[in-house]
Amino acid sequence: MPTDTQTAHADNLSDATKRFLLAAKHAEINVLEQLSSNCRIVIAVKNVVHALQKERGASNIYLASKGTRFVEQRDTHIAHAKDAESILRSQLKSLFLTQDRVNANPRLLSSITLALQGIDYLPVLREKVSGLSLSALESTRAYCRLVAGLLTVIFEAADIASDPTITRTLVALFNFMQGKEYAGQERAWGAIGFAETHFDKRLCEKLCTLQQAQLHHFSVFQEFAAAKQTALLDKLNDSPAAHDINQLRKMIAQLADGSPIAPEISEVWFDVATRRIDAMQEIENTLTEGLINEARHKVTNAQNEMKNHQRLISSFSDEYVPEGSPLTLLFDPSMPGLVEDHDAHPHPTLDGQTETLSAHRSFYDLLRGQAQYIEDMTRELEEAKRAITEHKLIDRAKLILMQQFKISEHEAYRRLQKQAMNENTTLPSIANKVVEIAQKAASPRKG
Amino acid sequence: MPTDTQTAHADNLSDATKRFLLAAKHAEINVLEQLSSNCRIVIAVKNVVHALQKERGASNIYLASKGTRFVEQRDTHIAHAKDAESILRSQLKSLFLTQDRVNANPRLLSSITLALQGIDYLPVLREKVSGLSLSALESTRAYCRLVAGLLTVIFEAADIASDPTITRTLVALFNFMQGKEYAGQERAWGAIGFAETHFDKRLCEKLCTLQQAQLHHFSVFQEFAAAKQTALLDKLNDSPAAHDINQLRKMIAQLADGSPIAPEISEVWFDVATRRIDAMQEIENTLTEGLINEARHKVTNAQNEMKNHQRLISSFSDEYVPEGSPLTLLFDPSMPGLVEDHDAHPHPTLDGQTETLSAHRSFYDLLRGQAQYIEDMTRELEEAKRAITEHKLIDRAKLILMQQFKISEHEAYRRLQKQAMNENTTLPSIANKVVEIAQKAASPRKG
Repeated sequence: MPTDTQTAHADNLSDATKRFLLAAKHAEINVLEQLSSNCRIVIAVKNVVHALQKERGASNIYLASKGTRFVEQRDTHIAHAKDAESILRSQLKSLFLTQDRVNANPRLLSSITLALQGIDYLPVLREKVSGLSLSALESTRAYCRLVAGLLTVIFEAADIASDPTITRTLVALFNFMQGKEYAGQERAWGAIGFAETHFDKRLCEKLCTLQQAQLHHFSVFQEFAAAKQTALLDKLNDSPAAHDINQLRKMIAQLADGSPIAPEISEVWFDVATRRIDAMQEIENTLTEGLINEARHKVTNAQNEMKNHQRLISSFSDEYVPEGSPLTLLFDPSMPGLVEDHDAHPHPTLDGQTETLSAHRSFYDLLRGQAQYIEDMTRELEEAKRAITEHKLIDRAKLILMQQFKISEHEAYRRLQKQAMNENTTLPSIANKVVEIAQKAASPRKG
Repeated sequence: MPTDTQTAHADNLSDATKRFLLAAKHAEINVLEQLSSNCRIVIAVKNVVHALQKERGASNIYLASKGTRFVEQRDTHIAHAKDAESILRSQLKSLFLTQDRVNANPRLLSSITLALQGIDYLPVLREKVSGLSLSALESTRAYCRLVAGLLTVIFEAADIASDPTITRTLVALFNFMQGKEYAGQERAWGAIGFAETHFDKRLCEKLCTLQQAQLHHFSVFQEFAAAKQTALLDKLNDSPAAHDINQLRKMIAQLADGSPIAPEISEVWFDVATRRIDAMQEIENTLTEGLINEARHKVTNAQNEMKNHQRLISSFSDEYVPEGSPLTLLFDPSMPGLVEDHDAHPHPTLDGQTETLSAHRSFYDLLRGQAQYIEDMTRELEEAKRAITEHKLIDRAKLILMQQFKISEHEAYRRLQKQAMNENTTLPSIANKVVEIAQKAASPRKG
């Protein structure tokens, strides 16, 4: 039975506090809606990247054949790329350029701007390819830079995402797309080697780096993707295309001494590599389908929670506060405060938010549940962001090595890989070492 | 002299891309304005915490003296706390509850809601203290929980801040306030020991933990604060109050065997500890003054950059693009793309954004500069967030130990400290080990 004092407590609940709880939930919905928009951009970007990878391959054959082969195929791929581009443009406009106030993340917008300016110049690149005024290598480089710019958009979207599940899917997608892009680059360098009728040591090393980079990114994908998608990659790795490419890879490795080969194998290589890369698109598509569903699900969930909160809050104000509830953090022994040695009350962890909502007996219970929910989400999010942090670490370590030893990005990556193998540790932990040493050198007083 | 092709390139600059660059800058200004609002909340919270710490101390003396001492002082402190509370409430309302769309961070809002609900119950706590229906220890616990809730608001504000300079100041402020709070708890436990006329081993250990916790948080403060503020702490550490407290601390350590002492020393202890804590307020104030100036400066800066961008963009469209500029990332050899071994072009690093803006000769230069600026900020921000990550790691490790060994937070912290000393390493790296082991145990397939 409630006592008089407890009734007094219930009256003390300030209206502002209730409005704040709803404002927090509202802010959560806004963040998820923004995230959902970003996911739609990510999908449009993925489609542009895929189309550009096909256009890049067709352009290379067109250029290598001095404009005699793949004329129609190239036109088809260009048309597809233009379609994908116009979808991306219209989505970007409707999501980011219509509102008065821009709530999007500045980093995401900045990466989009840079990629968009590259897309603006695609007509110039295509004109040069059509007029054969560019080598296949020069054309490849231009397409690769644009793809790298577009991949940065996906990476930024993953980095700024504030939901653990969606972050995991975006991390999986980014790594899968990066692996696929390296597969495309491997196809291009392999084609060059076969066309030149021999492979030298440097070219073989390049191919080896690209193969290891694919392994690295696909393994991060495996760690973060759902079982359905990782099963698809397992299936792909066991497909005839994968077996064929492995055989060709072995053949190339044996040709590092410069032994001559028939240039006709170039076409076989290109076909096999293309079959493998095309099969990757299916995995990309299931990833992005999952992404859209997750984002929609999260927004609906948060909206339902909001309604739940509103209903609960109005019910609390009409009722007495039940006996035995701590009522407020002031009198809640499970809340941290004074450092003492008899407060062994580990914070309760909630298995699911909705499930416990019905168990909230007071406004304070509801508040505490919401705070715990946000704490749990934050913790899960941090775990999901580990792969992103590691990717950044590797990038920073590469940059440090490049500047210090005046070496290429490729060579810097190779050195990190070698060092990791020598020390029997992982790439991220070697990268961490490099960055730490550089930081200590830069500010010795902080060491 | 510009060639015809280059003029054609200039015409290709899409209007949407320009609008996106401005939208990115606009989003940056919005983020900084939000951050500036959060800083104002942080300052209001700091003032409430300070007032509550004084009210807590006065309430303890009032309770220990059975309502005979500190009656007026307590009323004065309560009045101050009410003033600080009403300023906080009105700022919270005007910043977060007036707009239709809530753009604030859900985590910050959630931590505010929980603290606010605690503040709602302050009248109940004060009534109980006035009626002597609470022990000094119970009252201290309630105040400590509220202060911990308010400190969480500051911690979240630091964690979500997206500007490196402001993040550093907020990290410094949070750690200083946490150190000051532990100084307040040390004062309370010391007073209890002296009042009981003896110190037992457990109480001495508690005091020792609180002293080490102060050292830890003040050293993080020293690392992140500006020279002006760290000099103030050095001065405080060399003040008569600091020397006096160290002498009393040594005296207490020698009393761990339970030797009796005169209860009058309790007042000496309380006075000395209070002088030291009061002196800390000055440092808090210079920190928050710096915070407001930085936030204002950042917003103004970004607004000026925006005007600069607008001016530059309109000037580009009327001019020819200069020869020798890469025009777009497609043809910019310094941009990442194809993995090869002769692209040793480290990314240019910019010393200051404004300085280089005048050197932007093309729209692409401007874009590249902006992207580089954001990349540099992100990197600096990550470095500034290191202390936050370490704080979270320690908290997670404590929680793991508490749940695993059914020990108190205090005991968990002590074990981490001991282990760090034994292994001659830092507290964060021991915490990292604990968390990693727990994670591996939870999901062995990912290890």
